[in-house]
Amino acid sequence: MKIYADNAATTKMSRPALEAMTACLAEVYGNPSSLHSAGQEAYQALTDAREKIAALLGCQANEIIFTSGGTEADNQALRSAATLGARSGKKHIVSTAFEHHAILHTLDRLKTEGFEITLLEVPPNGILSPEQVMDAVRSDTCLVTVMYANNEIGTIQPVSEIGAGCRSKGVLFHTDAVQAVGHLSLNLREEDVDMLSLSAHKFHGPKGVGLLYCRRGTPLSSLIHGGAQEKGRRAGTENVPGIVGMAAALEDSLKDLPLKQQRISSLRDTLIRNLAKIPGAYLNGDAEMRLSGNVNFSFEGIDGEALLMILDEKGIAASSGSACTAGSMEPSHVLLALGRSFELAKGSLRLTLDEENTGEEVETISKEVSAGVTLLRKIG
Amino acid sequence: MKIYADNAATTKMSRPALEAMTACLAEVYGNPSSLHSAGQEAYQALTDAREKIAALLGCQANEIIFTSGGTEADNQALRSAATLGARSGKKHIVSTAFEHHAILHTLDRLKTEGFEITLLEVPPNGILSPEQVMDAVRSDTCLVTVMYANNEIGTIQPVSEIGAGCRSKGVLFHTDAVQAVGHLSLNLREEDVDMLSLSAHKFHGPKGVGLLYCRRGTPLSSLIHGGAQEKGRRAGTENVPGIVGMAAALEDSLKDLPLKQQRISSLRDTLIRNLAKIPGAYLNGDAEMRLSGNVNFSFEGIDGEALLMILDEKGIAASSGSACTAGSMEPSHVLLALGRSFELAKGSLRLTLDEENTGEEVETISKEVSAGVTLLRKIG
Repeated sequence: MKIYADNAATTKMSRPALEAMTACLAEVYGNPSSLHSAGQEAYQALTDAREKIAALLGCQANEIIFTSGGTEADNQALRSAATLGARSGKKHIVSTAFEHHAILHTLDRLKTEGFEITLLEVPPNGILSPEQVMDAVRSDTCLVTVMYANNEIGTIQPVSEIGAGCRSKGVLFHTDAVQAVGHLSLNLREEDVDMLSLSAHKFHGPKGVGLLYCRRGTPLSSLIHGGAQEKGRRAGTENVPGIVGMAAALEDSLKDLPLKQQRISSLRDTLIRNLAKIPGAYLNGDAEMRLSGNVNFSFEGIDGEALLMILDEKGIAASSGSACTAGSMEPSHVLLALGRSFELAKGSLRLTLDEENTGEEVETISKEVSAGVTLLRKIG
Repeated sequence: MKIYADNAATTKMSRPALEAMTACLAEVYGNPSSLHSAGQEAYQALTDAREKIAALLGCQANEIIFTSGGTEADNQALRSAATLGARSGKKHIVSTAFEHHAILHTLDRLKTEGFEITLLEVPPNGILSPEQVMDAVRSDTCLVTVMYANNEIGTIQPVSEIGAGCRSKGVLFHTDAVQAVGHLSLNLREEDVDMLSLSAHKFHGPKGVGLLYCRRGTPLSSLIHGGAQEKGRRAGTENVPGIVGMAAALEDSLKDLPLKQQRISSLRDTLIRNLAKIPGAYLNGDAEMRLSGNVNFSFEGIDGEALLMILDEKGIAASSGSACTAGSMEPSHVLLALGRSFELAKGSLRLTLDEENTGEEVETISKEVSAGVTLLRKIG
């Protein structure tokens, strides 16, 4: 039996996404910038996808800039805000210590260019308070960037309140919503978010495509220069089939979302209850304010990567943290930011469920994790 | 009857590319950075594609950095060379006036950051001499970037000689080979090229994927920061299905290439002969040193976009220049660089053939272009 419980790393394409993308790959081959019929057919497919996504996110079509994924969108948002800020002498950025590396490494880069970065400490439950964020904002702050939901522990941040605070202080607010979109209800019309990044392959869409939402009136500079695609905000021939696949995936992932969330969070809670019975097990992140599919534990006295290898032998795909840093031998910067010891940070296991997982699978996972931890402690 | 004669704008997916990519989309869903079996299967698909492409280009697998397309690859190459150059006080770049906008607009950007750019004038036949390029190199030149084949007129540059000259002077050499790869024989082992950009959708692969070749030992900085993918040189979850599709497309496009080139250039020469008979017709670019599928004419007294609309009505997909600037109402910067008048630059038509086009199609195109030009002159 194969159990895929690593949906935060990436997801299987949904049937609607796969069908829409495959049809587009086979049939829609024009360049959307070409004036002839084949080009206009591709342009129409692109426009339809853009409008569908805009409707699903509660924004306008021209507020969407298609990118090659969440990382590119994060890079563009940060660099654009920094460029804009520098023009008026504002070179301070507020973020958090447990962002994805797409944010942290871009901030590292900006630091070498003279920007000052405040990385907020993260409380043990993995949820920042809006006050903590707003207290860090200064008169020279050009950007606040706080992730919507953490990729390792799934904790959900008070994005609405942070956005409102930033709006009242006139500071740009960006959120990396790569883990949130498709899994949480979100209506951009009701949020004070200026920029938001997302990635299709996190909600059963294709790899290699994502987008940056940029609120109307928010200036945006290009990261990639060239042709006039995306109204001059992102050059390069558009990945039409990928974008069409992303639109279909988003639509499908948001269909009956409350029901799915309820079902998945019930599986999650069972798994948390089961794993909490293992001696020396510590749940990472708040037990409730987390993504419905996210389970993350640290186990005393074991190595997380060894545990996931044991699980893999049993047909269970899990993770010890972010896929983007897997195998790096470094403990998770997220767990360290929560105040976990080096040892517990190394002994972590992330299981991320979705609507395809079953109660039977959860029982199998629980049994095998328990057996794996016991075995590793014996060996160790 | 539908005739697609705009293969320089983009191409239809080849059957092998479509099949390889569709299978990968449906079956290989892991994240290549994940340590479990599903992840390692994706990693293996990525590795196989990388090795296949490396073998086809005559380079090593670790000299390939996958990107979202040719534009991103161009941006990374130029920005990386500029960053490197600036460190040793070298802030001069040599390029040409008829590069793609992915190059020209990135150079514009670097200019605002204090770089000095020499854009070489282009001779009327659209082919630079190696001497002309080398004469522009100075002691503070950090990069020479010259396109392999022009996207509008198809002329092929003496890349081997320019590369050898740069090598002897110790200057980095980059070539935008987006129009060349898949259509010309190329063996990087035999070339003094330090960096090369290509894009899959120009040789019957998918949109949204390309690569930057970066010769071993040539330092490369990231354009997109984040996870450690591509050995830290390009962050973001890899577009595995797109990359697999690109590898299959490249393999297929290079199969029996000399035979295909012979067949296509024979169609091209017939089309050139036919269109040259139209009064007031001027072939743009060298008649022989051009891509086997490229035909580009200027016609006196007509508007190129009006002509392509007439052709579209007849089922023929053509272009008046680069798709990336279509509809911009600006005359082609390429044709102006060749010394064409504003009027002739506005009256241009590009027809780009490939192995699916037939002799019958060429006759139809010839007849319809002739009729279209006559009609427009009557109306005008």
